[in-house]
Amino acid sequence: MPAKKVNPLDRMFHPESIAIIGASASNPEAGWVRRLLDSGYTGQIYPINPRATEINGLKAYPSIRDVPAPIDYAIFNIPARLTPQIAADCVAKGVKYAHVFTAGFSETGTEEGNQMELSLKQIAEEGGLRVLGPNCMGIYCPASGMTFNQDFPKKKGQVAFVSQSGAESMRLVFLAQDFDIYFSKVISYGNAIDLDAHDFLEYLADDDDTKIIACYIEGLRQGPRFVSAMKECLKKKPVIVLKAGLTESGAGAAASHTASLAGSKAVWDAFFKQTGAIPANTMDEVADIIQALQRMAAPKGRRVAIVGRGGGIGVIAADICERAGLKVPAFGPETQEKLLQVIPEAGAGVRNPVETTYGMGGAVDFYRQGLPIVDADPTTDVILIHMAIDVYGGHTRDLPKRVTEAADALCEKAKVLKKPVAAALFSGGHTDTIMAVAAARKKLMKAGIPVYSGVESASRAISKYASYCLAHTQ
Amino acid sequence: MPAKKVNPLDRMFHPESIAIIGASASNPEAGWVRRLLDSGYTGQIYPINPRATEINGLKAYPSIRDVPAPIDYAIFNIPARLTPQIAADCVAKGVKYAHVFTAGFSETGTEEGNQMELSLKQIAEEGGLRVLGPNCMGIYCPASGMTFNQDFPKKKGQVAFVSQSGAESMRLVFLAQDFDIYFSKVISYGNAIDLDAHDFLEYLADDDDTKIIACYIEGLRQGPRFVSAMKECLKKKPVIVLKAGLTESGAGAAASHTASLAGSKAVWDAFFKQTGAIPANTMDEVADIIQALQRMAAPKGRRVAIVGRGGGIGVIAADICERAGLKVPAFGPETQEKLLQVIPEAGAGVRNPVETTYGMGGAVDFYRQGLPIVDADPTTDVILIHMAIDVYGGHTRDLPKRVTEAADALCEKAKVLKKPVAAALFSGGHTDTIMAVAAARKKLMKAGIPVYSGVESASRAISKYASYCLAHTQ
Repeated sequence: MPAKKVNPLDRMFHPESIAIIGASASNPEAGWVRRLLDSGYTGQIYPINPRATEINGLKAYPSIRDVPAPIDYAIFNIPARLTPQIAADCVAKGVKYAHVFTAGFSETGTEEGNQMELSLKQIAEEGGLRVLGPNCMGIYCPASGMTFNQDFPKKKGQVAFVSQSGAESMRLVFLAQDFDIYFSKVISYGNAIDLDAHDFLEYLADDDDTKIIACYIEGLRQGPRFVSAMKECLKKKPVIVLKAGLTESGAGAAASHTASLAGSKAVWDAFFKQTGAIPANTMDEVADIIQALQRMAAPKGRRVAIVGRGGGIGVIAADICERAGLKVPAFGPETQEKLLQVIPEAGAGVRNPVETTYGMGGAVDFYRQGLPIVDADPTTDVILIHMAIDVYGGHTRDLPKRVTEAADALCEKAKVLKKPVAAALFSGGHTDTIMAVAAARKKLMKAGIPVYSGVESASRAISKYASYCLAHTQ
Repeated sequence: MPAKKVNPLDRMFHPESIAIIGASASNPEAGWVRRLLDSGYTGQIYPINPRATEINGLKAYPSIRDVPAPIDYAIFNIPARLTPQIAADCVAKGVKYAHVFTAGFSETGTEEGNQMELSLKQIAEEGGLRVLGPNCMGIYCPASGMTFNQDFPKKKGQVAFVSQSGAESMRLVFLAQDFDIYFSKVISYGNAIDLDAHDFLEYLADDDDTKIIACYIEGLRQGPRFVSAMKECLKKKPVIVLKAGLTESGAGAAASHTASLAGSKAVWDAFFKQTGAIPANTMDEVADIIQALQRMAAPKGRRVAIVGRGGGIGVIAADICERAGLKVPAFGPETQEKLLQVIPEAGAGVRNPVETTYGMGGAVDFYRQGLPIVDADPTTDVILIHMAIDVYGGHTRDLPKRVTEAADALCEKAKVLKKPVAAALFSGGHTDTIMAVAAARKKLMKAGIPVYSGVESASRAISKYASYCLAHTQ
């Protein structure tokens, strides 16, 4: 067996040494050095600052040229006007990768900014220095301890995020953490004068630590390379793409934000069709789809069985599912007959949606006795359980206990179900309920059940996940 | 001036006496009598129970015929099979309105249920007894102290809700309470063997206590009367309609839930077009639209100015707005120039969306100095402010204070703005932030600013509100 080819970018995510050019001496506790130390980076850190001898307990050097060892990765935390000179220093020193955190380049729309970006690009290109940025947050890689935010979790995960926006890259990490989802690599790449989205996709396609990829894209410089990298990726793992600026309003906003040419909707429609990438419209939706990808078994079709308390909410849920591209067909007569045996209340729905009865206790009973019947129904591809807690009044003191019981029963039963299961869990405003629901949510997620804030977000994520599965398994 | 004609239904919402037929003697603290006493109903209450002499401190009577005074309204809390006889008693007694809470009629789909419903209907019709139900929660009217849920607020409001689903009627009251929105009347009308949606619309059209009407409808018995009542209503006040069962999946569910013929999507599309009723797809959306109707000044068009922190989120927000039927046009050059004066950071967006800078402090500064410029821009019809708190990391101890400052600044400035303003307010997971955001939310709502959980819900509500305003002012 030939040795696996290592992508040179691997060194960028696992550098043996990092120089912080412009390491903060005035506020070291909020600086890059402190951040790397705290996040568990174990390589060599070299603070560079001509006006300091020590920063965060590490020896500081006046220039990168003075460092008496090789440097893999340099973070530029200096004014834009100094970057060409520093880049030249990095070339002289043989630095492999430069992350130019600094803003103030072409994104300002000024002649000065454009010029500076051009000289930075030229020096790096000629000297063989690979550049990430400028105007970006850089890399978060829990495995190597690289980070750009002191609050990011140290826990490693399976998701990689390639983001043109620095703020949105942070937003997804925090959003996902709330869903108990963690990252292998996050790359905020900004103006992308050198390394661009396609480079990261090419790397991530073969990255064994990455099982799911998400991208936030406003515009592309190299469309064809992006498309072919995307296709390669999608042969190996799912990729979600939030393409911002697809409407006229959004395209105008993107032009102003990252000077991106957003591209026409028709072009991007074709892109999604051609590549099979999973489209998302908001960051919440990105997180919702990641949940489905990471937790749910692959649905074999788009037919959903809906289970929950309340008749009206079942009708609304069925409408929502169909609007999201799913179907809620009636169960066969055999299934309906069996369901009637376990639902004691006359007239409660057994057609699909299933209306469980008698409060949370009825829900628990149904999870135990009814879910296997739904699971066995041949018209069902996915089971969607809605749990509307404390939204109809009648709040009682034992409700938190009942919520816990329901979550436990569902977790227990989900183990033996063959069909993929998702939950829509939301609650009314009593504090004790909110706490119990938050705990139940975590419990369900730990049991491998994706949990959504409502039927709308659940059905959208399930539908897009089903589209991906159906396109990639047939 | 002729005296205003009083709709006879007025007595149903303000009865001078209520009999509870089947008042609970075994669990009186959870019964209808207790509920009415607690909710402040000040008329006469007559508990009817042949096996009790006193219930909740009130004299109980064996039969309604034994009550030594006239009775306006009777609540049937008895098994379905007894209802025809009790209806006959009510006719003999001269009761005006019967609310048949009892279920077990045609909604069970059984021959027995159908028969019972038919005889109840016949007896009532012949005897001149008006019936609400069966199989419904009845009336909530804070002005008269009528209620069907002990947790409903006593506070009166401007919204009426006409609901075919009992559970959804409760859901909206609690949802709305969280938005600081209250009700004039809520009617859960169930199987509607007599009084039906159009009767309530006809009444509510002239009800001075009601400024906004919402309906949850699965199916109609008398389409043409509903349409004409709806048209009359809409000449006087806005009506939101959640028509459940508009998809094939939903229609199947509705048939099973309330035995409703859901009607085709084409028919209902025509209904919305013809009447100008405001369509909603979920209960959350109903509440969101009520917020806009109750709090926002009428937009003169669909052009939105978006203001908030973060560039990527601005691009996403612009896309979301356009997908919801709004536009986010670039400001004129004069406005952009003025905005550049108050936004110190080079390159931040002043085109629309506006990207406020330097954290919450920058937001506060912009609310004070920038919002009047946006307000004066001739291309702006509505101002949408997104406040994403604590979602990008960098949580600091003074963030709650900053959030409060931002809310105060926005409330203060909103007073002098001429264009309608809405806020999308959402937060990350730190407990202190969540508390501060909840308080800020209430503050903004008190200041007359509708507050949404995100740009998506905000833009949908604004778009539907704008459609209503544009159709009814031109």
